[in-house]
Amino acid sequence: MSSKHFLSVADHSAEALLAMLDRAAELKRLLAKGERPQTLQGRTLAMYFEFPSLRTHVTFEAGMAQLGGHAIFLTSDHIGIGTRESAKDVALSLSRWVDVLVARTQSHALVEELAEVASIPVVNALTDLLHPCQAMADLMTIAERKPLREATVAYVGDGNNVANSLILAASVLGLGLRVATPASHRPTVHVLRRAEDLARASGARIEVGEDPAEAVRGVDFVYTDVWTSMGQESESDTRRAVFRPYQVNEALLAHAPDAWVMHDLPAHRGEEITDEVLDGPRSIVFDQAENRLHAQKAVLEAVLEVGG
Amino acid sequence: MSSKHFLSVADHSAEALLAMLDRAAELKRLLAKGERPQTLQGRTLAMYFEFPSLRTHVTFEAGMAQLGGHAIFLTSDHIGIGTRESAKDVALSLSRWVDVLVARTQSHALVEELAEVASIPVVNALTDLLHPCQAMADLMTIAERKPLREATVAYVGDGNNVANSLILAASVLGLGLRVATPASHRPTVHVLRRAEDLARASGARIEVGEDPAEAVRGVDFVYTDVWTSMGQESESDTRRAVFRPYQVNEALLAHAPDAWVMHDLPAHRGEEITDEVLDGPRSIVFDQAENRLHAQKAVLEAVLEVGG
Amino acid sequence: MSSKHFLSVADHSAEALLAMLDRAAELKRLLAKGERPQTLQGRTLAMYFEFPSLRTHVTFEAGMAQLGGHAIFLTSDHIGIGTRESAKDVALSLSRWVDVLVARTQSHALVEELAEVASIPVVNALTDLLHPCQAMADLMTIAERKPLREATVAYVGDGNNVANSLILAASVLGLGLRVATPASHRPTVHVLRRAEDLARASGARIEVGEDPAEAVRGVDFVYTDVWTSMGQESESDTRRAVFRPYQVNEALLAHAPDAWVMHDLPAHRGEEITDEVLDGPRSIVFDQAENRLHAQKAVLEAVLEVGG
Repeated sequence: MSSKHFLSVADHSAEALLAMLDRAAELKRLLAKGERPQTLQGRTLAMYFEFPSLRTHVTFEAGMAQLGGHAIFLTSDHIGIGTRESAKDVALSLSRWVDVLVARTQSHALVEELAEVASIPVVNALTDLLHPCQAMADLMTIAERKPLREATVAYVGDGNNVANSLILAASVLGLGLRVATPASHRPTVHVLRRAEDLARASGARIEVGEDPAEAVRGVDFVYTDVWTSMGQESESDTRRAVFRPYQVNEALLAHAPDAWVMHDLPAHRGEEITDEVLDGPRSIVFDQAENRLHAQKAVLEAVLEVGG
Repeated sequence: MSSKHFLSVADHSAEALLAMLDRAAELKRLLAKGERPQTLQGRTLAMYFEFPSLRTHVTFEAGMAQLGGHAIFLTSDHIGIGTRESAKDVALSLSRWVDVLVARTQSHALVEELAEVASIPVVNALTDLLHPCQAMADLMTIAERKPLREATVAYVGDGNNVANSLILAASVLGLGLRVATPASHRPTVHVLRRAEDLARASGARIEVGEDPAEAVRGVDFVYTDVWTSMGQESESDTRRAVFRPYQVNEALLAHAPDAWVMHDLPAHRGEEITDEVLDGPRSIVFDQAENRLHAQKAVLEAVLEVGG
Repeated sequence: MSSKHFLSVADHSAEALLAMLDRAAELKRLLAKGERPQTLQGRTLAMYFEFPSLRTHVTFEAGMAQLGGHAIFLTSDHIGIGTRESAKDVALSLSRWVDVLVARTQSHALVEELAEVASIPVVNALTDLLHPCQAMADLMTIAERKPLREATVAYVGDGNNVANSLILAASVLGLGLRVATPASHRPTVHVLRRAEDLARASGARIEVGEDPAEAVRGVDFVYTDVWTSMGQESESDTRRAVFRPYQVNEALLAHAPDAWVMHDLPAHRGEEITDEVLDGPRSIVFDQAENRLHAQKAVLEAVLEVGG
C-alpha cells in the first residue's frame, strides 16, 4: 500500500486493492463455513460518527468481533471533534489507546486532518467527498459476477461521494463506467481529473454524461443511490424534481436487459429506485450490503498489516 | 421449538420452554462457579432499541460477552426503522451481518415484520403487546422456589405487556394465575382468548378479575409492575388515580402471608409498590432481575440451536 | 486495599497505590511488546456516564477488551439514575449482572450512594469533587520521569476535581505539590484538611497559594486544567477573566526551566494553555493520556482482585 491510511481508493495501487478484494472473498468463504480467523485478536478500533449509521457501524463492529478484536462506538455528540476538543488532540489521544480509527465525518478535510496527525491508520467511513469502504464492497460484488476488467457499470443519479469513490475505483482497476447525472449534480471536478489520470494507466473507460438511458445501455451493472444524502434533507423537494428522470425502474432497465442492479442503501423506495426493482431478481443490493462486512475486514487487516 | 424466533412464549411448546429454563438454571450455577461456557463464541447479536433500557441492554450485552459472543447496541435515533430506512431493508441487511436480532419496539407489528423478513432469529425484547424475555425470567424465579405446576401467582395492577406475557407463560406451563386489574386496563383480549386455549391443554388455572385482595389471597407470588409504562408518561396522573387501589403494600400482602413479591423493574417506589415491600424480606425482585441474564442466554442458545 | 471501591485515592494506602502503579507500568511494557495478559477474561464492566467522555470511555473499553473482558457503555439519557429509576435499584441490579461499575456522575454523593448499595466494586470516573483515575495516570506519568517522593509538582488554575485528586494523591504518596489558584477557586476545603492529615504521615509537602509564578518556581512538573469544566459552560466568560493570570505559557514556564508540562485534557487551547506549550517539547500530556489506559487496567485488576 502507498498509504498507511484508507482515505481514498485512489491512494492505493491496483495491486493493493486487488489483494484486499481477494482476501475479502477468502474471509467470506471462511465465514460461510463458520471459520473466523483471529487475525485481529486483542486489537481495538475506535469508530467516530458525525452521522447516523447502520451498515458502517454494524459491519465494522461485527467484523472486528469476528476477527477477535473489539470496536468502540463514538459519536460526535459525545466527543465533539472541533467543538469539545481539537481534531489534533483527539487524533493524538486515540493513537495512544487503540490500533485503528474509523471516521465518518461531514468534512473530508477533517478525516484528512485526523490522518495527518494520527500515528495509527485512519479509515474513511464516508465523508462529503468519498466513500471508499463502499467502493470496496461494490468492487467485490461486481467481481463475484464478472471479471473486473471486463465489467461495465452505469451509475445513475447524484454525483455524490458514493459516485466519486466508484469512479476512482473503476479508474484504478480498469473497469468500464458510464455516469449519468443532472448537469447540476455531476461528480466532483477534481475527482474526475484524478480519474482521467488513473484511467490512462489502467485502461479504464470512464464516461460522464447526463442521459440515464444512454448510460445504462447494455451494461452489466446499474448502480444508483439516494437523491438526498445525510445533511441535505432541507433540499429534498428540489432534489426530487431534478432527479426524477434518473429513477431506476423497469422502464430504464429495459435498456440494460442483462444488468444486475446495485444500491449502497439506505434506499428511499419509490424515489431513486422502485420497489419492483429493489426487490426484483436483478437486485444484488443485499449482497453488496453483506460485502461491506468482508471488504472492510480485508481493509482493516491491510492497514494493520496482519492476516492474509 | 415451533418458531425459529422468540416473539412470544406462546409460539413455543411447554417442552421447549422448560428446556430453556433448565438450561438457564444450569448457566446460573456455572457462572456462580466462574464457569462461562463459550457456546456463542464468535457469534454476534444486534440489539435495536426504540425505548431506553437498563436491564435488557445490560443483560443481553453481558450475556453475549460471557458466552463468547458480542452484542451491538443500536438505537432508533441512529437507525430509524420506518423513518430512515424500511423495516424490510434493515432486517435483510442485518441478516447478512449478524447471527441474531434482539428488538425493543413500540409496535408489536414491527417486531413481527422484522421476523417475517429476517433470515436470522429475532428475539422480542418488549413491545406494546408482549415481553416474553421477562416472562422467562419470571418463570425461572418462580421455579427456584416452587414447582411451576404447583405455583400460584397473583398479578396486580396494569394489564400490560408484562401481564400479557405472564398470562401466556402460565397458560403454556400450567401455573395458577389470578390477575386483578381495573376494568379499564384489563389484559389484551386476544391474549386472554389464546390463554384459554392453551390452558385447556396444560391445565393452567387462569382467573381475571378486578379485586386485588381476592387475587392475592393465599398465593405463593404477588407480582406487580409500573402503572405508567414507557410512552404513556402523559397519562400518568390519570393512571395514578385509577390504579391507587392496586398498590402492593403491607395491607394488601396481609391477604397473602407467605407470598414472595415480584416486580420486573424499573419500579416507581411509592406508587405501585411501597419501599417497605420492595426492600423487605419477601421481595425477590433482584433475583428476578438477575434471572434476565441467565434466561436470555438460554433463549439465545435455543434460537441459535447451540449449547446445552 | 482498605476499600473494595475506587472512589478516592485517599481511601487507599500508599502501599496499595504503589502496587497499582507498578502493575500499570508492567502492563504498559507488556502491551508495547504486543502482550495482553487475559486477567479479566470473561469479566464485564458497566460504564455509566452523565457527561460526555472521550478518554474515560475509550480507555476503559479498550482496557477491558485488551485484558479479555468487555465494557458496556451506558448513558444517563438511557438509564436515568434518579429520574427513570432510583440509584439503589440500579446499583442492586447491576450488581447481579456485571463484575464492576465505572461511573461518571455530576454529584460525588451519587457515586458514593451507588458504592454503598452495590455488591460489586464501583470506580469513580470523575465527579464534581474528585477524579481519582486521572490522579493515577498523573502519578504514573510523573513516576516515569522522577521518583515520586523526590518529585515537585505545581498545579496552576482551577481548584477543581482534578486538583483535588492530585492533592490527595500527592499527600498519600509523599510528593511535593504547590497549588496556585484564584482565591475564589481554591481546592475544596475538606480535601485540603484531609490532605494535611495524610501529609503528616507521608511527609508530603503541600502548599496552597494564589501566585502561579511562585508556585512553578523550580518545579519538575507544571500541571493545569481547563478553566471551565463540564456543567459550568454558562460561567465561561467570567471564568476566563478570573483565570487569565494562570495561563500556562512560555512566560510562566520561564520560572520553571526544567519542568515537564501536564494537562489532563480536553484542553481549551489558547485559554489555560498555549499551543506553543501544549505542542512543545516539554509537553507530556499525551503520555499522561496514554497512561489512563494502563493505570485504569491496574485499578480494575486491583478492585477485582486478579492479575499481577
